[in-house]
Amino acid sequence: MDIFEKSLQMHYELNGKIEVVSRTNIETSEDLSLAYSPGVAEPCRAIAANYEESFKLTRRSNLVAVVTNGTAVLGLGDIGPAAAMPVMEGKCALFKRFADVDAFPICVDSKDIDEIVETIALISKSFGGINLEDIGAPACFEIEAKLKEKCDIPIFHDDQHGTAIVTAAALINAIKLTGKEMGKLKIVINGAGAAGMAIAKLLMQMNFGEIIMVDRQGILCDNDRSLESTKYEMAKLTNPNKLTGSLADALKGADVLLGVSAPNCVSKEMVASMNEGIVFAMANPVPEIMPEDAIEAGAKIVGTGRSDYPNQINNVLAFPGIFKGALSVRAIEITDLMKEKAAYAIASLISEEDLKPDHIVVSALDHRVADAVAEAVSACAVEEGIARV
Amino acid sequence: MDIFEKSLQMHYELNGKIEVVSRTNIETSEDLSLAYSPGVAEPCRAIAANYEESFKLTRRSNLVAVVTNGTAVLGLGDIGPAAAMPVMEGKCALFKRFADVDAFPICVDSKDIDEIVETIALISKSFGGINLEDIGAPACFEIEAKLKEKCDIPIFHDDQHGTAIVTAAALINAIKLTGKEMGKLKIVINGAGAAGMAIAKLLMQMNFGEIIMVDRQGILCDNDRSLESTKYEMAKLTNPNKLTGSLADALKGADVLLGVSAPNCVSKEMVASMNEGIVFAMANPVPEIMPEDAIEAGAKIVGTGRSDYPNQINNVLAFPGIFKGALSVRAIEITDLMKEKAAYAIASLISEEDLKPDHIVVSALDHRVADAVAEAVSACAVEEGIARV
Repeated sequence: MDIFEKSLQMHYELNGKIEVVSRTNIETSEDLSLAYSPGVAEPCRAIAANYEESFKLTRRSNLVAVVTNGTAVLGLGDIGPAAAMPVMEGKCALFKRFADVDAFPICVDSKDIDEIVETIALISKSFGGINLEDIGAPACFEIEAKLKEKCDIPIFHDDQHGTAIVTAAALINAIKLTGKEMGKLKIVINGAGAAGMAIAKLLMQMNFGEIIMVDRQGILCDNDRSLESTKYEMAKLTNPNKLTGSLADALKGADVLLGVSAPNCVSKEMVASMNEGIVFAMANPVPEIMPEDAIEAGAKIVGTGRSDYPNQINNVLAFPGIFKGALSVRAIEITDLMKEKAAYAIASLISEEDLKPDHIVVSALDHRVADAVAEAVSACAVEEGIARV
Repeated sequence: MDIFEKSLQMHYELNGKIEVVSRTNIETSEDLSLAYSPGVAEPCRAIAANYEESFKLTRRSNLVAVVTNGTAVLGLGDIGPAAAMPVMEGKCALFKRFADVDAFPICVDSKDIDEIVETIALISKSFGGINLEDIGAPACFEIEAKLKEKCDIPIFHDDQHGTAIVTAAALINAIKLTGKEMGKLKIVINGAGAAGMAIAKLLMQMNFGEIIMVDRQGILCDNDRSLESTKYEMAKLTNPNKLTGSLADALKGADVLLGVSAPNCVSKEMVASMNEGIVFAMANPVPEIMPEDAIEAGAKIVGTGRSDYPNQINNVLAFPGIFKGALSVRAIEITDLMKEKAAYAIASLISEEDLKPDHIVVSALDHRVADAVAEAVSACAVEEGIARV
């Protein structure tokens, strides 16, 4: 039985991977009166008098909604809201396992941006944070931006920012090993969807170097006015030499390839043309180029999204700690600086002695990660003055 | 420290009365692959191929949303969505405790009927059923009706139907004791809000007898064309002799008074004017008349909503089992007949020998109730052909 059949069987046996339990015993008549009527009127009154008390008196204090509309689920594409739920429940299980954050899956049955935003905003007082998940680009950018304006709790699109944070963390360690210089890297990002865009933004903010973005049509260049607006805006911020052409053209002499695109779209020749390349081939489950091929072609460090190869670049290193940190100080948003600090916190978990080409990022199962990220994030929120606790 | 202070302190200590936990261990790399990527793609595909599988492969199988907009919370009135959440969490804790049904609280930040309906409908594929809670009348009637049309899962407004079911159950047992005859009762319902309307409908369906409804303005009579439409429709179905006047007028010679109204609005004189009255004074926490006063005035059987008096008429006897039964057979709605069967199931839990004027309804903490109700409800769903399992 392969992993897919085994997972299906497990899902039929479990009838759901999450469960809602009570944190209080209800055995006696007094228990009922305290947890429910009439006693519960008092915490209700306290919140009615001071809204912020809802973050202390209810589970919002530690609760994230994992929200999708099912339009970009794993490699499966637009499979709809109900079919996306096994992924969302899995994500919620990971939140609990890695950060002891409660997370609850919500699917929104709509593809209309304003309808999605309105729906999430209207239920947002039930939660302490919103983790957007598997919503297709470019809709996801507008949904995230509009929700940030409407809501008073952190909004985080994991496919964008989680991927960007962990990629940045791995890259911080990779350049330490190669002797390449921070700020002077030539970085090619293949894939201009949610993940590619967010990686580009975060790496620019962190001053890694020059960035060139490539999509299916080739290098993004602001000479091309036919680009969709999100891509056009990104083209203006990247590719300073206004290079045009294919992925192969972009990779010549490049230091870093970050693939968030499609299986097998990178050849050994392309890798060979790089400058002692760092290659993160993160397409899942089949990467842009198999690690053994990349190394054979001369790549110095290779990472993928897979658990069966070294250097797994996995979002689970970021999102649990991000929300744990934000919730712990009632941060009202997750800022760009918090993402940067999270990347450095993840990178710092490997000491200089332990750092090796096949060990630039810690295991997804490493118990230290969420707390390290949470501490960096909560400290940053306090510094930035956006913590309400 | 009174019950209110004690409850507030408990809520500060708990930081929320519910918690979302994982039903699967995630310790190894294989665990991750089964619960999340890549294995989880398979249950996603199975649901994309057959929507009904979502009721087996995800927690929808056993999951109810407890939804409010915070407009009619306990006796507190319109305190808003965030402040209503302690009640909703309490309800969720009761669902788990009494029926092992998972329930999750959602507050919708709106008073616009169509906006509320749209929001709930758009997230309904995340759940197996919807329990509406503490939404003010008459908006609650339209919201329930519209959701029933839009959703393929059971919709149940507990303030209406839960109250009606438990009231009917208690009344079934009360008339056994008094020798009054089913079908020939003269019943006065004081209060024409959500609970009063639903009680009237269920008792009519179950043929208890003649019903007269009374609100703050007096007896509802269809001679009065100024009545709000829900009340006017109900006036046409009740009060066959077109009685007008006050609550005192309605109660003269009545067999039953069902109070779902306000504290202390029933006098001893009114009770004395009844025909060996059955009095359920269910206003909370202060009833329409105190039980000792009602008995002194000649009432034969008295019930309240309070746990510190005999015959507590408490919704918790109904809603956990209602949803447990409906979910167990994937019923697509909760029908009127299911409510009737639930009432008889609750009533039947007291044997003829145990039936006494101060013991017409079982304790809210009785462990047998939810299963008895669930069995009646699921059997009824199968008979009515609305079960999908």
